[in-house]
Amino acid sequence: MIGKLNHVAIAVPDLEAASRTYRDVLGAQVSAPQSVVEHGVTVVFVQLDNTKIELLHPLGGKSPIQGFLDKNPSGGIHHICYEVPDIIAARERLKASGARVLGDGEPKIGAHGNPVLFLHPKDFNGALVELEQA
Amino acid sequence: MIGKLNHVAIAVPDLEAASRTYRDVLGAQVSAPQSVVEHGVTVVFVQLDNTKIELLHPLGGKSPIQGFLDKNPSGGIHHICYEVPDIIAARERLKASGARVLGDGEPKIGAHGNPVLFLHPKDFNGALVELEQA
Repeated sequence: MIGKLNHVAIAVPDLEAASRTYRDVLGAQVSAPQSVVEHGVTVVFVQLDNTKIELLHPLGGKSPIQGFLDKNPSGGIHHICYEVPDIIAARERLKASGARVLGDGEPKIGAHGNPVLFLHPKDFNGALVELEQA
Repeated sequence: MIGKLNHVAIAVPDLEAASRTYRDVLGAQVSAPQSVVEHGVTVVFVQLDNTKIELLHPLGGKSPIQGFLDKNPSGGIHHICYEVPDIIAARERLKASGARVLGDGEPKIGAHGNPVLFLHPKDFNGALVELEQA
């Protein structure tokens, strides 16, 4: 069912410093910051040869990553995103297996313009998993 | 400097259950467990289309991931591994930038038979980063 690893998301307390680390210290290709208002984050994309890293920083007062940064002030790996060909078929398979889909269970449009769902970390070894139709 | 994302490592409290989740629920290709005695872990490789996930479980009394599982009993994303063409050149560039290399700073042979180094999470947004020469 899952295909490519679309991205690994890292929540960071200082987006400019994190961008510099990835660009200057690790020598990676780093995008300009992009605000994704409807998801409450500003994102910097780090393009690797086979996938990407997303550096996430809270945007606005109700950012879904603020609580994570409160608990992890230095930042940390926030979630991993796997691609699926059909997000509704994926959701039905997951629900049939007993895995919990977060929120109201309806796909939202993610940062790349594709439908996404998040899965409960307790059902996936403590890792927050995003599925993206791609 | 960094090229491909070699793998994402997830520490898991129950390797058999985690393997089943990735194979049966997420429909991924999952290897048999492999013991890597010198690193104190048993590993299951989840092969994705562009990279892999490594499910790690402690092996022996001094496993480097036991402390992580004590703090995170459900498991969690433990580290990310980036490929570099020359690990000594990478280490010198990192040291020159002030980033801290863990241990004695000498590359060890990793689970794939290649030299690896681990970098201090505080210098990389709270994320434990492994570099692998590949």
